[in-house]
Amino acid sequence: MEGKNLLRYLFFLSAIVLLLFFTLLNLPSPPSKAELLDCTTSSLWCTSKNRIQSKNPITKPNSHTADVPHHPLDPLTLTEFNRIKKIIQSYQLFKNSVYALHSVVLEEPEKKAVLNWKKGDPLPARKASVIARASRVSHVLTVDLSTGEVTRVEKNQYSGYPTMTLEDMSSVTWAPLASADFNRTVIERGVDLIDLACLPISTGWFGKAEESRRLIKVQCYSMKDTANFYMRPIEGLTVLVDLDTKEVVKITDNGKNIPIPKADNTDYRFSVQNSYQRLVNPISIEQPNGPSFTIENDHLVKWANWEFHLKPDARAGMIISRVMFRDPSSGEMRSVMYQGFTSELFVPYMDPSDAWYFKTYMDAGEYGFGLQAMPLDPLNDCPRNAYYMDGVFAAADGTPYVRSNMVCVFESYAGDIGWRHSESPITGMEIREVRPKVTLVVRMAASVANYDYIVDWEFQTDGLVRIKVGLSGILMVKGTPYVNTNQVNEQENLHGTLLSENVIGVIHDHYITFHLDMDIDGSDNSFVNVHLQREHTLPGESPRMSYLKAVRNVAKTENDAKIKLKLYDPSEFHIINPGKTTWVGNPVGYKVVPGGTAANLLDPNDPPQKRGAFTNNQIWVTPYNKSEQWAGGLFVYQSHGDDTLEEWSQRDDPIENKDIVLWYTLGFHHIPCQEDFPIMPTVSSSFDLKPVNFFDSNPILRIPPNVEKDLPICKAASAASA
Amino acid sequence: MEGKNLLRYLFFLSAIVLLLFFTLLNLPSPPSKAELLDCTTSSLWCTSKNRIQSKNPITKPNSHTADVPHHPLDPLTLTEFNRIKKIIQSYQLFKNSVYALHSVVLEEPEKKAVLNWKKGDPLPARKASVIARASRVSHVLTVDLSTGEVTRVEKNQYSGYPTMTLEDMSSVTWAPLASADFNRTVIERGVDLIDLACLPISTGWFGKAEESRRLIKVQCYSMKDTANFYMRPIEGLTVLVDLDTKEVVKITDNGKNIPIPKADNTDYRFSVQNSYQRLVNPISIEQPNGPSFTIENDHLVKWANWEFHLKPDARAGMIISRVMFRDPSSGEMRSVMYQGFTSELFVPYMDPSDAWYFKTYMDAGEYGFGLQAMPLDPLNDCPRNAYYMDGVFAAADGTPYVRSNMVCVFESYAGDIGWRHSESPITGMEIREVRPKVTLVVRMAASVANYDYIVDWEFQTDGLVRIKVGLSGILMVKGTPYVNTNQVNEQENLHGTLLSENVIGVIHDHYITFHLDMDIDGSDNSFVNVHLQREHTLPGESPRMSYLKAVRNVAKTENDAKIKLKLYDPSEFHIINPGKTTWVGNPVGYKVVPGGTAANLLDPNDPPQKRGAFTNNQIWVTPYNKSEQWAGGLFVYQSHGDDTLEEWSQRDDPIENKDIVLWYTLGFHHIPCQEDFPIMPTVSSSFDLKPVNFFDSNPILRIPPNVEKDLPICKAASAASA
Repeated sequence: MEGKNLLRYLFFLSAIVLLLFFTLLNLPSPPSKAELLDCTTSSLWCTSKNRIQSKNPITKPNSHTADVPHHPLDPLTLTEFNRIKKIIQSYQLFKNSVYALHSVVLEEPEKKAVLNWKKGDPLPARKASVIARASRVSHVLTVDLSTGEVTRVEKNQYSGYPTMTLEDMSSVTWAPLASADFNRTVIERGVDLIDLACLPISTGWFGKAEESRRLIKVQCYSMKDTANFYMRPIEGLTVLVDLDTKEVVKITDNGKNIPIPKADNTDYRFSVQNSYQRLVNPISIEQPNGPSFTIENDHLVKWANWEFHLKPDARAGMIISRVMFRDPSSGEMRSVMYQGFTSELFVPYMDPSDAWYFKTYMDAGEYGFGLQAMPLDPLNDCPRNAYYMDGVFAAADGTPYVRSNMVCVFESYAGDIGWRHSESPITGMEIREVRPKVTLVVRMAASVANYDYIVDWEFQTDGLVRIKVGLSGILMVKGTPYVNTNQVNEQENLHGTLLSENVIGVIHDHYITFHLDMDIDGSDNSFVNVHLQREHTLPGESPRMSYLKAVRNVAKTENDAKIKLKLYDPSEFHIINPGKTTWVGNPVGYKVVPGGTAANLLDPNDPPQKRGAFTNNQIWVTPYNKSEQWAGGLFVYQSHGDDTLEEWSQRDDPIENKDIVLWYTLGFHHIPCQEDFPIMPTVSSSFDLKPVNFFDSNPILRIPPNVEKDLPICKAASAASA
Repeated sequence: MEGKNLLRYLFFLSAIVLLLFFTLLNLPSPPSKAELLDCTTSSLWCTSKNRIQSKNPITKPNSHTADVPHHPLDPLTLTEFNRIKKIIQSYQLFKNSVYALHSVVLEEPEKKAVLNWKKGDPLPARKASVIARASRVSHVLTVDLSTGEVTRVEKNQYSGYPTMTLEDMSSVTWAPLASADFNRTVIERGVDLIDLACLPISTGWFGKAEESRRLIKVQCYSMKDTANFYMRPIEGLTVLVDLDTKEVVKITDNGKNIPIPKADNTDYRFSVQNSYQRLVNPISIEQPNGPSFTIENDHLVKWANWEFHLKPDARAGMIISRVMFRDPSSGEMRSVMYQGFTSELFVPYMDPSDAWYFKTYMDAGEYGFGLQAMPLDPLNDCPRNAYYMDGVFAAADGTPYVRSNMVCVFESYAGDIGWRHSESPITGMEIREVRPKVTLVVRMAASVANYDYIVDWEFQTDGLVRIKVGLSGILMVKGTPYVNTNQVNEQENLHGTLLSENVIGVIHDHYITFHLDMDIDGSDNSFVNVHLQREHTLPGESPRMSYLKAVRNVAKTENDAKIKLKLYDPSEFHIINPGKTTWVGNPVGYKVVPGGTAANLLDPNDPPQKRGAFTNNQIWVTPYNKSEQWAGGLFVYQSHGDDTLEEWSQRDDPIENKDIVLWYTLGFHHIPCQEDFPIMPTVSSSFDLKPVNFFDSNPILRIPPNVEKDLPICKAASAASA
C-alpha cells in the first residue's frame, strides 16, 4: 500500500470511527422486551386506556388475571400460560439450552368432544400446543395442563421454520447496525444512522443457496422528517441476516445511484398536518337501548338468531367456531360451521430484481396475522357502539401478555334494506313493506409492517355471512432515479407506477385463504357443483333457442372440488347435508358466493408459487383433518411447499357425505396508483356464505319495520354542554 | 247434438251466465286514472303524507306547482308539462285522432351548451322530447317551450314500440275479463274472478307471428287469502292481448292439471303476521349537526368534495349528471362524468315452455324503470337522516303528476374504515391513525311488478363511486303438481327449484346496463386496457421464474373496447384524459372496477339475445352520440334488436382521445332457493368507478378522525317521554 493511500485509508477509517461513536451516542435503541410486550408500560398500542366504555352495557375487566376457561375452545388464560411456561422451563429438552416459544395455543379437544360438550358439562382436559425452537431444531409439543406433563414431542418433519417471534422480528432489524460495512453503506447513501428504520423481510425460498439455516433479509428506510419511513427506501440495500445468531451474512447494495425519496407530503399523522379538511358533519350509529348482542363468558357471542364462539389467535388473527343459527320455525339451534378463520396470506411482488424478487410474503405463517393485529382505535376502527375483545398471547420465553382491543364486535346499520316490496301502479294495490338490514360485524386489523388488513366477519339476520377483507396502510415502494414518467423509456418495465418523485409503487397480489369447516346440520356434508349450462331447444320445441339449466354434480373426491372460477362457465357451489332435506325435499345447504376476486397467474413451478400453491384454485374441499389448518403448511417460513393444501389434496380422498372443509381464496391484483400515496384508501372485497334451502322459507319474514318511536332522541354534544 | 248433451250444454251455459252476472256485480274494478296518477287521491304510494321532515334542515315543498328550472338539465316542471299538453293537443297530427304520450321528458340541450353554462347564465331554450303514439304509429317530437312550436316530428324507423304507459299496463290487465272464454277458464281452474290479479307481461319478440301489432301477454293469479298473489299462479294460462285495442287475441291454457298453490305462509305484510320476531334493538344513523349535504335548487347535490345534478327519470329511474370533484390540492372543481344512468335491464327466464319462453323482460324500455319506482318508505328504505326527492312525470294524456319520495339521498356510516395504519410491534413506533368512512348514497327502488330493484349510487370522499344494484321483492314462480322433490323423476328438468308445495322458482338472469359518459377533466378521453400478463425471467436473470407485468393498450376503435371479463386473463380498465397528467406524469384517469357479476350465456342467435345483445360484453366504449342513450334501443317493446348498443358499435368508430361513453353491464344468475319464498332477502352486487392517478395523492389524507366530543348525545325515545 502506498503512503498516500495508507494516509487516505487511515483518515477514512478514523472518520468512520468518529461517525460510529457519534451515532452510537444517538442511536435509536431497540425497545426492551418489557416495552414490546408488557401492557403496563406506556405503549399506546398495548394499553386499554383508550377503550371506550360508553353506554355499552357489556363491561369487562381490562386485566385478564382472573380469566378461567368456560368453553372447550376458550383460548389459554393468563394463568394457563404461566403454568405452561413453568412446565416448559423444567422440561428436559429445554433445560440446558437456549430456546424460544414460537407458538403457544390451546390444543383444541377432538372435534367430537367439542360437539358433544354442553354448557354445564366439565371441560375436556385443557392442553396446549407449543411450537418451540431449541438448538436450531423446531419441535411441536403437547402440554397437558391437568397433569403438567409434556405428552407429545415431535420434530418438524417438513422443510420450513415456525412463525417468527416478535422478538425475532424486532431484534433482527437492529442486527445490521453491528456491521461497520452496513453502517458505512447507509451513511454513503446519505442517511444518518439515527434516522434508520429497518424491516424484517421474510426471504421466501429459492433453492439450495439459502437452505439449512433460518435467514431473513433486512431492508432499511430513512425516517428523517416523517413517520412514514416506508416512502423513503434506501433502495437496493439488502442485508441477509441469520435469524438465530443475528449474524449479518451478506450485504448487497444495488441502489447507489438511486436517491432516497423526499419526506415531503409523506406523513399521514393528523397531528402533523398543516391544515385539515372536515368534509362531513359528525355521524354515528346509535342504539338507544344498547346493543342487541351479549358475549357470554368472554367468548360466546349471541346476537339475533346467531351464536358463535370467538377468540383472538396469534396466527389466524381470530377464530370463529361453533357457528349456529336458531331456526325461526323450529326454534332449534342449527349448526352452520364448525370453525372458520384466515388460514394463510400470500403476497407476491412482481419485480424479479435482486432487492425485490424474494418478496412473497405469507403473513400468517411467517409473521403471525394475529401477532400483527394491533389494538383497534375506538370510534375510528370500529364505531362507538363496539365491544372490544383482548388477545392473550405468549412471548418467546413463555410470558403471557395482553394485546388489548384486538377484536371488535358491533352492530352495523348502513341504511341498507333486508327485503322489500312495493306494489307498482300496475296492480294498484297499496303495499309498501320494507325491512331494514342490521348486521353484526366482527373485526380485526392486522398491520403486517406497512400493510393493514381489515378482516370482517359480517353476520346477517337472514343467515348470510359475509367475509370481507379490506386493504389499507402503506405501500411497499421502490426508489428510482425518475421524477417524471417522461424520463422513462417506453420499453422499460418499471414494475409498477411512479407515485411521487423517486417512488415506484410495485405491482403485487394479495391472496387470503380461508379455512371454512362447514358443518351444515351436522358434520357429514357433501360439496355440490350446481353447474349452469346452456341448453338448446329441439326444433319446434319452443320459439326460444336456448336457456340455462342447473345441473347438480356431487363431488366424489377432492379432485372434483378443485375449482377455478369461470365467468363464462358458471356454477353455484353448495355444501349440503345429504341426510337432511327441507319440507319439500331439497337438501339443506349453504353456498359459497364469490365476489370480486383475482386469480394467481404465477408459473406453478416458480418457487414462490410452489409454496403458494394453495392459491392455485379459488375453492378446494378436503376431508376434515385436525392437523390441516394452515393452507401453506404448519412451518411456512422458508418452506419448500411440501406441506400445503395442494400437497395434501393430491391424495384425492373421498369427500362425499364426509366431514369436509371448504377452502376459499380471495385475491387482489394491485397496480398502485397515486391515490395510494402516502397511505392507501381502503380497498375491499368479500365473499359470502349464504343459506340455500337451509331454511324452509325466508327466515326474516316476521321481523318488524323501523318506526319513529323506537329511534333515539339525540342532540349535538356541543348543544348538550351549552 | 243429442238431447241429453244439449240439456247439459244449456245448463252449463246458464251456470256460466249466472256466474258472470254474479261476478260482474262483485268484480274488482280497475282504478280510475285519477286514482292511478293523481296524488290528491288517497293512494298511499302517491302521497307525501308519510314523508319524514324530522330534523333535516333541508326542507322542500310537497307541491311542485311553483317549480321553475334553474339548471339546463333540470327536468320538466309541472307548469311546463301543462304547456306541453296544450301544445300537443292542438298539434295537427293529434287533433283528430286518439293518441297517447308514452314519454315526455326534457330534451336536454347539446352537451356543449350544458358544459359552457355557468350559474347565473340564462338557461338554454327549454325543449321537450315527446314520444307519442297516434293512429298506431309511434312518433318522436320536439316541443320548443319558448316558441310553443313542435319543431321536429319523426316516425319511429326501428322495429319496436315505445315504453308502455301506466294506463296501457293497468288497463290491459282487465282486458281478459271481457272474454267469457277466459272467465270460464279461470273459474274452471278454481279461482273466483273476484280473486283474480293479472299482470301485463311483455311478449318479447319471436319472429313474424307476433309482428306488426302491439301485443302483450296477460297471466293471472289468485289473490284469495294473500296479498302475495304472485305465489298463486294460474299456471299455463296465457292471454294474448292487443295493447292498442285491448282485444283478446288468443287464450292458451296448458296448466289444467296444475293446482293453484296454497295461500299459506305467502303473505309478507307485517300487519297480517301472527307473531313477529324482534331480533335487534333499535339502531339509527344519527347526525347531531344535520346532514353535510345541500341540494341547491332541488337538483344540484353538494356533499363533501362532490357536486352533481340529480333528477328522477321515468325511463332510467334517475339520472346523475355533471359529476364533479373538488381537488383537495388545487381547490378546483374537476369533471369526472357528464352523465350516468341505468340504460336498460334484461331479465331472461330459463324455461322454454309455452307460458314462460317469452319472459325476457327489458324493464327500462318496456315498463319504465322510473315509472315503476314507487315512493320510498322512510326509516326502512332509507335511514332517518335521508332527504327525499319527488319525480314529476306526465300521464298518457299529458297531465303531469307527482311521484313523491321517489329518490332518497343520505349519508351512510356503517362503521367502515376510510384508511388506516398502525405501526406493528416490529418497529415499536406508537402510531395508530384511522379515518372513518362516510359516504353519500343516492337511492331509488323500482318495483317492476313482482321484482324490486334497489339502485344505489354511493359516493365516497376519496373519489370512488360505487354503483350497486340490490334485488328483492317477489319471485316469478311457476305452478307444478309436485309437492316434494321425491316425486320428481331425476331426468326431469324443473327449470328451477321447488320452493313450496306446487311452487317452482324459475331460474333467470338479471342484467343491468349502465350508460356512463365519463368526462375525465374534459370530454376528450381514451380507454386504456391495462393488461396484467405473466412474464418469464431469462435464465440467470433472477431466482424468480415469473411475475406479472402491466401492459397499457390504448383502444383505437370500438372493437378494441368490447370486453369480456376473464379471471385468468385480467386487466384494469381505465378511462384517461390523454391530454392531462399528474405532477409526475401519469395520465389522469378513472377505472371501472367490476365486482361479482354474471355473463350472459344465451345463444347469440336466440331472438331474446338479439334484443339483449348489449349484454354480450361486460364493457363497451362508444363515441358520444346524444341519441345513443338506451342500450336496447329507443323503441324496445317488441323490438328485433336493430337499435342496440351491439348494432351501433359494429361501425367500429375511433374512440381514442374522443368524447366517449363507457357501458357496463352488471349481471346476476338467479337459481331460486327456499329462502326466497315468499319474499326475497336482498341480494346485491356492484361495480366501482375509482380514481386512478386522477389525484396527485390520497385526496382524504387530511380528514380528521372521529372524536367523542363531536358525537351526539342520545337517549331512547321511550326514556325521553318518561
